[in-house]
Amino acid sequence: MVSSGDVNGARVYSPTGDHLGNVDHLMIDKQSGRVAYAVMSFGGFLGIGADHTPLPWGKLRYDVQLDGYVTDITKEQLEAAPAVPEDWQRDRTWGQTAHDHYGVAPYWM
Amino acid sequence: MVSSGDVNGARVYSPTGDHLGNVDHLMIDKQSGRVAYAVMSFGGFLGIGADHTPLPWGKLRYDVQLDGYVTDITKEQLEAAPAVPEDWQRDRTWGQTAHDHYGVAPYWM
Repeated sequence: MVSSGDVNGARVYSPTGDHLGNVDHLMIDKQSGRVAYAVMSFGGFLGIGADHTPLPWGKLRYDVQLDGYVTDITKEQLEAAPAVPEDWQRDRTWGQTAHDHYGVAPYWM
Repeated sequence: MVSSGDVNGARVYSPTGDHLGNVDHLMIDKQSGRVAYAVMSFGGFLGIGADHTPLPWGKLRYDVQLDGYVTDITKEQLEAAPAVPEDWQRDRTWGQTAHDHYGVAPYWM
């Protein structure tokens, strides 16, 4: 288990072990207690600047050996991702579209 | 939704609205992404000192109006709770006993 503090900064890798970026923080659905999004900091590595990008938590898998998370999200998927509106945390329509885009079931399902 | 940072310090109330204590941090099961425990700081209010006490996350319910969490855990339940071993995060036997004690399904079920 990890503390809600320690997840911040956890490293995220590609399936081939490249270090893609870091988890900046998690967004937790208050009512269900489920982690909904990992807000990622890519540091420009994937060409999308150092912006914080919410990714569906279901796309990250913890890897014991790496002591980090692995995602199969590609640069192409990130570049083609639906624009993140300012109120993305409350925008269920964007949420559905984003989960569809990355091909993963929404956290509220 | 809340940021994994902002949950830290969230207020916890009794069903009658008394402020019982605060969430110090959450413990998240890395592999499932589920919140497992809220580690509470009671500040001595319930007579158990200012120690940090892990409570099953399923015993906390978010209340929109209070903008905090409500639990029906009683002082008597806390006082009679199974002792928390040092390695409680990895001790599934303690985890099962604690969830049984508070009458809530474990996060891994």
